[in-house]
Amino acid sequence: MVYIGVDLGGTGIKAGVVDEQGNILAKDSCPTGVERGYAAVIEDIAGLCTRVASRAVHDMSEVKAIGIGLPGIYVPSTGRVPFCTNLGWHDVPLLAEMRKYTDLPVFADNDATVAGLAEAVAGVSKGCNVSIFVTLGTGVGGGIIMGGKAYSGPHGIASEIGHMITVAGGEQCTCGNKGCWERYASATAIIREGRRYAKLHPDCAILKAVDGDASKIEARTVIDLAKQGDPASMEIFDQYVYHLCVGLVNLINLYDPEIIALGGGVSHAGQFLLDRVNAILPGLVFYKTMPYAEVKLAALGNDAGIIGAAMLGR
Amino acid sequence: MVYIGVDLGGTGIKAGVVDEQGNILAKDSCPTGVERGYAAVIEDIAGLCTRVASRAVHDMSEVKAIGIGLPGIYVPSTGRVPFCTNLGWHDVPLLAEMRKYTDLPVFADNDATVAGLAEAVAGVSKGCNVSIFVTLGTGVGGGIIMGGKAYSGPHGIASEIGHMITVAGGEQCTCGNKGCWERYASATAIIREGRRYAKLHPDCAILKAVDGDASKIEARTVIDLAKQGDPASMEIFDQYVYHLCVGLVNLINLYDPEIIALGGGVSHAGQFLLDRVNAILPGLVFYKTMPYAEVKLAALGNDAGIIGAAMLGR
Repeated sequence: MVYIGVDLGGTGIKAGVVDEQGNILAKDSCPTGVERGYAAVIEDIAGLCTRVASRAVHDMSEVKAIGIGLPGIYVPSTGRVPFCTNLGWHDVPLLAEMRKYTDLPVFADNDATVAGLAEAVAGVSKGCNVSIFVTLGTGVGGGIIMGGKAYSGPHGIASEIGHMITVAGGEQCTCGNKGCWERYASATAIIREGRRYAKLHPDCAILKAVDGDASKIEARTVIDLAKQGDPASMEIFDQYVYHLCVGLVNLINLYDPEIIALGGGVSHAGQFLLDRVNAILPGLVFYKTMPYAEVKLAALGNDAGIIGAAMLGR
Repeated sequence: MVYIGVDLGGTGIKAGVVDEQGNILAKDSCPTGVERGYAAVIEDIAGLCTRVASRAVHDMSEVKAIGIGLPGIYVPSTGRVPFCTNLGWHDVPLLAEMRKYTDLPVFADNDATVAGLAEAVAGVSKGCNVSIFVTLGTGVGGGIIMGGKAYSGPHGIASEIGHMITVAGGEQCTCGNKGCWERYASATAIIREGRRYAKLHPDCAILKAVDGDASKIEARTVIDLAKQGDPASMEIFDQYVYHLCVGLVNLINLYDPEIIALGGGVSHAGQFLLDRVNAILPGLVFYKTMPYAEVKLAALGNDAGIIGAAMLGR
């Protein structure tokens, strides 16, 4: 049996046929075209599923289910998507729309949750009973995987890892609260701190690296300079890693996972990131002499969305 | 079948025989006598179990298991207690010692975790699939209950709810970190803030309530004055509830429980506490229009330890 996984994003829809072990047998994609409204987008999802399946299997009966990862939340009991900000979706009847085109079981979940599931099935957290995937991008997302399944909670609102408050009263978050973890542990946080520093120190290496145009400072700008030993960038990066570790230790204190997998833009800092995490995290862990989660880099990259969505149907 | 539950504390050991529904059929207690060393304490636990069982059942074969709740952690795979600070225990072979006196299955877990299990079986969280118990006492402890079982995590270090960092860089915690939730959401936090205020305002109502002796300020002093409308006490209490809600919303974002049960000293503020929580929490919740955890007062009081420990064996 195989499973179809759909990675629904703000700009593109990717779909793939995935086997039991999480291997992609075929994949295809199309633009999302959000402006056309949800019905047209969901029709395209269904069309993409048929197309990609026809390339991987002889008979649609070999396909067991369709899973969809989306940048919002899905409530299985109603089959609806209450929120999907990037798509401008609000209370969309995803399941009912899909039913117009397919009789296959349809599952859906948050895209970061689904990526976590992929890592747990076929990636760096393979074989774990409890693992957490954290994506360090524009925001901070995550997926909590327990017993081979994505954990979404009784109301479907668990795994809002990035909006865990770690600095009560701190930086204003887009969600309305102050001090959410993602204000401190996202790529956006490194950019913000890099720009703040550059504003105060016009002759700094960070500003030189972007030819004096602070708007061009990216997370990578600061990380690359930190790797080269620029003291200001090292300090910004260390502060970043401290705040990253604050959230990680909260996940450890609450979930005690075997592995925490880091994905997203900042994770491309690779071993440099892991080395700093491994320098700071042990000092924050509550039970200093007990084993605790190993922090690793996510392994599946962009395919995690397709693989994890497919695994929703397992 | 019945179960024996043991509530092992720093000053006393309580044991009870509990039926499948979480009703206590008989109970008994003895002093802990920590200074005698772990072997003597565990011998007393075993003796207390035999004594209490003989009063509730005719035949020890009706007893299915012994469960022990303790103020530390227990690792089932080794049968040992790595830490139990209040008892001064370090790496204690609890299971091996119990084996000298009984052939019954022996389970153990953290006391707050066990109290959470009790609330989930026979208390305010009865019937929930996912519930969290939070005890607001000298510190903040907690128990995460999923599918009728206490969740302790793969390494047994989950549920360290009170040491979730909510104010990174904030108040120094006994654990070595800064800004742990329990520094802000425990009874100790109210006492600290009451004393701080009294020091700055020698003519305040708080200090008057304790005849000018700041060392006599308790959480209850501030809470009672807040109930009576004293502005300073109301502000301290509201700040307290804000920080309490920060941690609660983190639990909601990560676990999405159906019920969060509040126990411990501060929970005796009762409806006054719940009213303030229900005024502040909704503004912090991420998905404002989705259902989320109901916050309730724990129902079982001091018996939760015995009932929950017994339920470990179910």
